[in-house]
Amino acid sequence: MTKKLIIIALGGNALLKNGQKGSITEQNLNVRETLKNIFPIINEGHNLIITHGNGPQVGYILLKNDAGEQIYNIPQVPLDVAVADTQSEIGYLIQSELFSLLHQNNITREVISTNTMVEVAIDDPAFQNPTKRVGKTYYDLAEVKKMQAEKNWVFKQETKNGKTGWRRVVPSPKPVDIISKNTINTLARSGAIVIAVGGGGVPVTIEGNTIHGAEAVIDKDLASALLAKQINADQFIILTDVPYVYLDYGTDRQQALKTINIQEAAKYMKEGKFGEGNMAPKIQAAIDFIEAGGKEVLVTDLKGIKNQDGTKIVKA
Amino acid sequence: MTKKLIIIALGGNALLKNGQKGSITEQNLNVRETLKNIFPIINEGHNLIITHGNGPQVGYILLKNDAGEQIYNIPQVPLDVAVADTQSEIGYLIQSELFSLLHQNNITREVISTNTMVEVAIDDPAFQNPTKRVGKTYYDLAEVKKMQAEKNWVFKQETKNGKTGWRRVVPSPKPVDIISKNTINTLARSGAIVIAVGGGGVPVTIEGNTIHGAEAVIDKDLASALLAKQINADQFIILTDVPYVYLDYGTDRQQALKTINIQEAAKYMKEGKFGEGNMAPKIQAAIDFIEAGGKEVLVTDLKGIKNQDGTKIVKA
Repeated sequence: MTKKLIIIALGGNALLKNGQKGSITEQNLNVRETLKNIFPIINEGHNLIITHGNGPQVGYILLKNDAGEQIYNIPQVPLDVAVADTQSEIGYLIQSELFSLLHQNNITREVISTNTMVEVAIDDPAFQNPTKRVGKTYYDLAEVKKMQAEKNWVFKQETKNGKTGWRRVVPSPKPVDIISKNTINTLARSGAIVIAVGGGGVPVTIEGNTIHGAEAVIDKDLASALLAKQINADQFIILTDVPYVYLDYGTDRQQALKTINIQEAAKYMKEGKFGEGNMAPKIQAAIDFIEAGGKEVLVTDLKGIKNQDGTKIVKA
Repeated sequence: MTKKLIIIALGGNALLKNGQKGSITEQNLNVRETLKNIFPIINEGHNLIITHGNGPQVGYILLKNDAGEQIYNIPQVPLDVAVADTQSEIGYLIQSELFSLLHQNNITREVISTNTMVEVAIDDPAFQNPTKRVGKTYYDLAEVKKMQAEKNWVFKQETKNGKTGWRRVVPSPKPVDIISKNTINTLARSGAIVIAVGGGGVPVTIEGNTIHGAEAVIDKDLASALLAKQINADQFIILTDVPYVYLDYGTDRQQALKTINIQEAAKYMKEGKFGEGNMAPKIQAAIDFIEAGGKEVLVTDLKGIKNQDGTKIVKA
């Protein structure tokens, strides 16, 4: 069997399940279960890069930031730094559970967890139209005015479950370059299991020779697809909470897709057949990767990954 | 000139100066200044690993943890996870400033920031005698009882500046193995600048095939010295806030040391000639490294590093 370079993007579910409180113990157990399911890939000797989301974790860090400023007057860290925090927090969880799993199976491969900065374009239109809700639910008007003045934050008013309030919104620009791609590539192809691009990467802009952190978040599937493209990965797996990609998910007409090519995927996307918030970015990530020469994308859940079952997205 | 593998351990001062409030902006400026001073080493083409402390940063994360639990009922992360958080937080700061510095000087080297787990022995006597103060100043007795019951934390009563209260204390065990040493070594020798062993590393114990996080902190100079030993670094530089190591520092008899061998260092150490909390662990780290075959340790401050001036600790 040929050794492949595989990138697996872990979804939120792989780390924290709906209804859980978010303790590290819960997350350890979830990660352990996830890794057991992707173990066949490791056992077959493929080179492997694991990427992951950070939604609930970065949410907690932002709330703790807010609480720390209120009680102890500690300066809040900007969003890019909060994303960085989650990279090693989650990286350490995965790394330690993977260490145990490898040792229990007598496999001697090092696991390395890296911080990844991801470049976004300064003129990305997302910066003019921040839409991604982050931080606490809700800020009141006095806080909104304070944060706007002190920190330049942008807020949108929303009403949900009968409650009205202000939420902070940040841009979600497109990833354009994975800064340490060469090192990640070399490491992964040397046999080390690499954890990278956590939370979509720390968003940075580059002006001339200078790098600046950006208070933004990058979609983790798009960033993972970009990495897969830039280092010519053989397979890109998006791990989510459903076994297949469906058309008209959650309706009477719901239909599971087994294999589709990127022309079909693009057509369905245009027709709005995929969930906007959740599945559409995954399909876009898949199309990006295949268009750039990637062979195959697999979208599936924990059970599917074990048997390499799920929705396959291919060139033609 | 021969290309050396150099490990530089950045002291607290390199990141945050006395009296500063701890904002990321302050830390960025401090790191920028630090990197400018170590730039000659990079410019000469040496292979380089940067390690760093995390005292104030992990302190803030623990306080935010406490505040987040109080206000938002967010589960606190254990100390090992808080240390992990600081690794990518500080790693990102160094990585981004270094990226700009390298680009401004037309140097194409990748910078990689890694999470580092460091093994400590389960039977390290430090676990029976926790001494390192962490977290807020002070807990009151009701909180102490709650945290002892809920989290098994250990507290010591202390009186300082006329205030009496309880502080959490944790063990500071000796580092016995840098878990990802091979990858760190390969990366650094390939020319990438590697940031590793942040805050002394995330302390873990290994029982059979299973790894466990330990609620402890590891001295960053001892952990850096261990890495230097394990990967045969040529030079180990400890960056601190004084230009030299002194005998009887702060007294009338204060005397700067230019070059000492490890026999002299051990003798002075035994005689209590170095500051217990601050300089003694640095000297111990230097002795460890040289005894294991290392060539030279340099202890100095930012000005010293630029000219490779400071206290040199050598074999004989």
